[in-house]
Order: sequence, then structure tokens, then C-alpha cells
Amino acid sequence: MTDLMQRLDTLATASDAPDNLTRLFLSPAHKHAIGLVAGWMQQAGLRTEIDAIGNLVGRSANPSGGRILLLGSHIDTVRNAGKYDGNFGVLAAIAALSQAGPLPYGVEIIAFGDEEGVRFPQTLSGSRAVAGRFAAAALEGCDAKGVSMAAALQEFGCNPADIQAIARDPATIAAYVELHIEQGPVLENQNLPVGIVTAINGASRYAATVTGRAGHAGTVPMAMRRDALTAAAEMVVAVEATGRAAPDLVATVGTLSVQPGAPNSVPGQVSFSIDIRAPSDDTRIDAATAISAAFERIAASRQVDLDIIQTHDAPATPCALALREQLATAIAAQGIAPFHLPSGAGHDAMAIAALCPVGMLFVRCKAGISHTPEESITAADASTAVAVLAEFLRRFQPALSI
Amino acid sequence: MTDLMQRLDTLATASDAPDNLTRLFLSPAHKHAIGLVAGWMQQAGLRTEIDAIGNLVGRSANPSGGRILLLGSHIDTVRNAGKYDGNFGVLAAIAALSQAGPLPYGVEIIAFGDEEGVRFPQTLSGSRAVAGRFAAAALEGCDAKGVSMAAALQEFGCNPADIQAIARDPATIAAYVELHIEQGPVLENQNLPVGIVTAINGASRYAATVTGRAGHAGTVPMAMRRDALTAAAEMVVAVEATGRAAPDLVATVGTLSVQPGAPNSVPGQVSFSIDIRAPSDDTRIDAATAISAAFERIAASRQVDLDIIQTHDAPATPCALALREQLATAIAAQGIAPFHLPSGAGHDAMAIAALCPVGMLFVRCKAGISHTPEESITAADASTAVAVLAEFLRRFQPALSI
Repeated sequence: MTDLMQRLDTLATASDAPDNLTRLFLSPAHKHAIGLVAGWMQQAGLRTEIDAIGNLVGRSANPSGGRILLLGSHIDTVRNAGKYDGNFGVLAAIAALSQAGPLPYGVEIIAFGDEEGVRFPQTLSGSRAVAGRFAAAALEGCDAKGVSMAAALQEFGCNPADIQAIARDPATIAAYVELHIEQGPVLENQNLPVGIVTAINGASRYAATVTGRAGHAGTVPMAMRRDALTAAAEMVVAVEATGRAAPDLVATVGTLSVQPGAPNSVPGQVSFSIDIRAPSDDTRIDAATAISAAFERIAASRQVDLDIIQTHDAPATPCALALREQLATAIAAQGIAPFHLPSGAGHDAMAIAALCPVGMLFVRCKAGISHTPEESITAADASTAVAVLAEFLRRFQPALSI
Repeated sequence: MTDLMQRLDTLATASDAPDNLTRLFLSPAHKHAIGLVAGWMQQAGLRTEIDAIGNLVGRSANPSGGRILLLGSHIDTVRNAGKYDGNFGVLAAIAALSQAGPLPYGVEIIAFGDEEGVRFPQTLSGSRAVAGRFAAAALEGCDAKGVSMAAALQEFGCNPADIQAIARDPATIAAYVELHIEQGPVLENQNLPVGIVTAINGASRYAATVTGRAGHAGTVPMAMRRDALTAAAEMVVAVEATGRAAPDLVATVGTLSVQPGAPNSVPGQVSFSIDIRAPSDDTRIDAATAISAAFERIAASRQVDLDIIQTHDAPATPCALALREQLATAIAAQGIAPFHLPSGAGHDAMAIAALCPVGMLFVRCKAGISHTPEESITAADASTAVAVLAEFLRRFQPALSI
């Protein structure tokens, strides 16, 4: 896989920043990257085009004229990004298609342009449009310089009026399969190069505020305090305990701020975030209920007031069982034990799931680190992932219902 | 006590701010306040002078020529202050001296000029100088406008070169007694107008940093986390539990900050403050040891790193038992149950304790609130406090060793 790793290095030179990899949707670096990837697609025998939302699409011949298979991932990045998030899935799909040899069905590889949602308020713009779920209102969203997505698309050479027309007809699409780096430490911990995604986790996010009574840390006796921070601390521990109580569930307090926030003041108010994710929506909702009940108990016992509002709620995206099984067969064919894990991060497959069955293959990444220049995968793992996808492609039968 | 409450209202008009009470050391408002208080001292038969550090001193006759009693408190304030902190102790001492009638010993009432330490880096400048503990280096400390304490003293009409000469000879001073608002909620909770201070609490302050491993809140399984915040949360609860374990001990985490501090990030590092206060140094040091041991256990069990540094260490200032007993007798003479409590806040008595035995009487304040315009005491409580001090003065015998 020297070629693939070299291409990933080359693609990483397409950046909007001089000294790190930053490639925002519809930027000059995005156009630069499209040029590079289109060249590699064409070398692989694909016809390429840039669609109305700025996705690069590479199409193979479709000998049967029947349902086609979608492959892909995204080529936009976060600021100061790693080289593999998204980009790996696109270039690995091109490599796997070449390695698979002639296929009896049509394939489209899509390099989505806006998975990270860094530039405009909306995220997943490219995959939403392909799935027919692009809301025109998103075109009015502006970047930090006040440029709307509509204006940026036109500047890029795309016609926003044509976005609705790129929605695929579900009858023509058999499935979508995406390769992606894990962005977590599970495969490394399992000592496995690849893993099959069970579901993209659903996520609930809450903002909690605990209000007690501020006071002087020297003059208010312990028994007379209504300390917002000690109450919040018990809640933080309760969130963790709930997260530990079910497999594949995670629950996190990532932010916490204290008012008035002085060493000699008893905290009067504490605000914090709660993030709950699980591959099963029932598990996630049960966890939210358990956390809420624990918070109520703690607040009552400490005589503090509690306010919780939900700020985000996204259901889980299950991966199709048939695709999981076919990926497992392809992995086993490489002499590797098939291993299944949920995806904690979001992916284009979430949006495409509105169009067709989706499957995802994760490749091990070093220390689970992503969204930084330290993001790393090995050439050997990349090779294994490509071989698995090529094997999957050879066996795939788009006519069978999934 | 209508007169006393009216005087406190009048004194509160001496402010450096147009719309709130802010009276900084050596400011125009400080000079204005000295003028007002000096007039009331003179009405009470005291000879007044401004000493070399800007304290206003009012001296009674000393018929016996023997040891004298010091009374007083401070007349500087924090910014946007209440009317009673410090000021009450000075004006109540004047009122009590008048109410006590002729005394067979000399009394000095001192209105200290720098208890709050708002303007210059040093605090307790006036009482340190009287106690012979003023360090000349403090004269070089500058306010926010770059004016040194030395320059401000000269501008005020004081000669810094004379500061060392105002240190009192311990052989000439019998004791120091200070009235002050409690600045805490204990007396209100006890339904008592006054209380006897056992000690001004010693204080230890620490800065703790817990370092775990940051990660993606969606992709790192619970079992693979080293969450700095959940570890810190257990530590916060341990601090509270330690504070609750001994009478008159308080232990507080007042600040806490989380890195990286995003809802979708597992916290990698958390920093927080620990403030421990107790009237007994042994109690305070034992508490610090217990907290440190609990932190080590928590850090070890969670595989996080722990760094603690001590940022402040001040021993307790015990009030003289004989003065406490005499204050108790004077309280009982008013038909009130004597009640003893520690002082969580600092006072001029801390500095004066280097010179002579000190005693303090607290008066109840509304809801324990201080350092804001909402600071409040009742005229009835003020009257009780003055009557107690007058009774104490009538019974006090400076020739007896304390």
C-alpha cells in the first residue's frame, strides 16, 4: 500500500493553511484536493464530475444497468487536521476498486465535501444532498467572514439551484459502504487492524445548571452550606457510573464552570455539559433517565436547585446486518477475526442511511487519536483494509435485498 | 443606638466612588472618614492624631499611668462595600467608651487604615505598624496607578520614616479588643446578637492539578478512560467530607477548570483550589493530611497523575482565654447566653496578636452577607454589642496579666 500512503501524503498538501492541514468546504484547498482525487479516480477508470453541492463523484461502468453500490467518505478536514480522517476512506475505495478487478455492477465513489461542518453552521451537506435530505435553508448559513454557502458554491462553480436534483433515487442504489479510521482506541486495544461498525451511536447532549448558595469559604460552616460544586461533583460521578453500567454506552461531562469561582468562595452555581452516546437508542434514553433520577436525588439531598435542558438529540444509525455479515466474511477471508464495534463519532453514512442500507469498516488508528496532526495509521493496516473492501466488492450482489 | 446607626450612615458617605461605598487606604475618602471619626472621638473626650501609617488614634486620659487597653478596627473598605465591616468596630468602641463612664485606666481607640489590602499588595499595614511588624519593603509596593505606598503616605501628610516609631512597647499594652460584624451566618442561625471569637482561623490553600488522558467523548470506551474530571469530582467530595469531619473546620474547593473543556471531549486535565481553615492549627494540618491521602488513593485507583502545591499557609490566631471569659461575663450581664465561634475571615487582631493578647466580639449580620452593599446589622444588635463592650470596659483590670 505504498501507493495509497503516498497518495494520502500528497493529498495532505492541499491545505488552506501554510503550516498545517486545514481544508474547509469550498475553499481553494478543497478545489486542489478535488483535482488530485479526480486524477486518481480517472486512473482507476472512473468518469468524474463535481456535483451541485461540491461533491466529487467518480462513476464506473454499470454493465448490468441495475442497482449500483456507493462507496466514499469526505475530503474536507477540521483545522490543523490529520491526514487520514475522511481522506483515507475515499482513496482506499479507489484502491480497492482497482484491486477488485472488473465487477458485474456499477460503483460510484463519492468524495463528500462537507462532513466536518467547520465552515458553515450545517454539517454533512454533501451526503445530505445525495440522500435527498438537504434543506435549502442551509444555503443561507454564513461562514465567519459572512459568506453564505450559496455564494461560496457559486464561487466554486456549483449551481445551488441544482442541489435537489442530485438526490439519488433509492431504487437505483443497493447500498453505501464507507471506510474510515476508527478515531478511537478500541481496535488498537483489541490488536486488530480492522473492525465492523455495528451502528453510528445516537447522541444526547444536555446542559445542567446547579444553583446552591454562594458564601465566604472562611465564615460559612460546612453544615450551613449549599455548595453547588460538591453537588455537581456527585453528579459528575453519577454520569460516569451510568456510562459504565451498560456495554457500548458512553457518558461524559466534558465542560464544567464554577461561579463565583474564587478560592475563598463557596461555589454558588455550577454549569456543566452531559454527553451520552450508544449504538442503541433504548440504552441511551435509559441512561438519560437514570442520570436525571440520580441528579434529582443528589439535588434534593443537598438542597440545591437543578436545571437541565437537552441541547442535542440524534438517534443511532444502525449499520445493515447483511452488510456487517458480508464485511465479516471479507475480513475472515484475510485470516482476521471479525470484530464489531460502535462508532462514537459521526460520519457521512448517517446522512446516507436515509437513502439506502449503510455499512462501515473501521481501520485501527494510533492511540485512538484524531483531529490532530498526530493522527496515524500504518501502511499494513491500510493494505488490510483495502484488501477487505476489495474482497467485499468481489462478493457483493446488488440485486439481493439487504 | 440611633446615634451609632446614624453615624455609620454618615461615615458611609465618605467614599471614593460616586454611587457606592469604596474607601481605599490613603484616598480622599479615607481623609474624609478620618475627619468624621476624629470629630466623634473628640466629642467622646479623646485626643486624636493621625500616625505615620495613616491610622487615626484617639487617646483617653490614663489616670493610673499603667498599661492601657487598645480598642479598634478599620475604616478602609473593599470596593462597592457594606457600611459595617470595620467601621462598626471603630464607632461602637467610641460609643461604648462613652457609655462605660470614667475608667481607671487609659484607652486608645485605633481606626486602622489598611485592613482590606485593596490598594497596595500588602494588607494589615496599620495594625502591623502598631504591632512593630511593619516591613519597610511594603512601602515600595504600588497601587494600580503605579503610586507607591511611600508616595501615597507622603501625599496624605504622613512621614514613612516615622512608621517604626509608632510600634507600641508591649509592656505598656494590656490587651486589644475588636468588635466586628461576623461576616458569616452562624449567629443568625443561633438566633444570638453577639458571639465571642475563639480564634481567627488559620488557613491553608493549595492548587491541585489532576492529569488524565483527553479523548473523544464518543469513541473512547468508559473502561479505557483516564478522565481527569471524574477523578477531580471524587476529590471535591473528599474535601467536603474532610471539612465535615471536625467541628469548626471548613474545607472548600472554590475554583475548578477543565481542559480541553468541550462537551465532546473526555477531560484530560483539571485544576482546582483547596482552602482549609480551622481555629486549631492541628485540626487544619490533620485535615490537609487527610485530604492529601484521599487524593492519592483516588489518583492511584483512577490512574491519573496528581500535583498539589501549597499556595498559602497562615497559622491560627487564638483569642486570649481571659478576654473570652471577660467578654462572656459581660454578655451574660445582658441576659444573653455567651456563645463562642471561630472567625473565618481575617482581622486587624491577627497583626496585633504579635503585640498583646487579643479578644474579639462578633455582632450578627443579616444572612452572613458581607463585602456588598447588602451588608446589614440591626440597631438592636448594635446596641447590645455596645452595651457588652461597655460592661467589659467597666470590669476590665489592665494590671492583671492575661
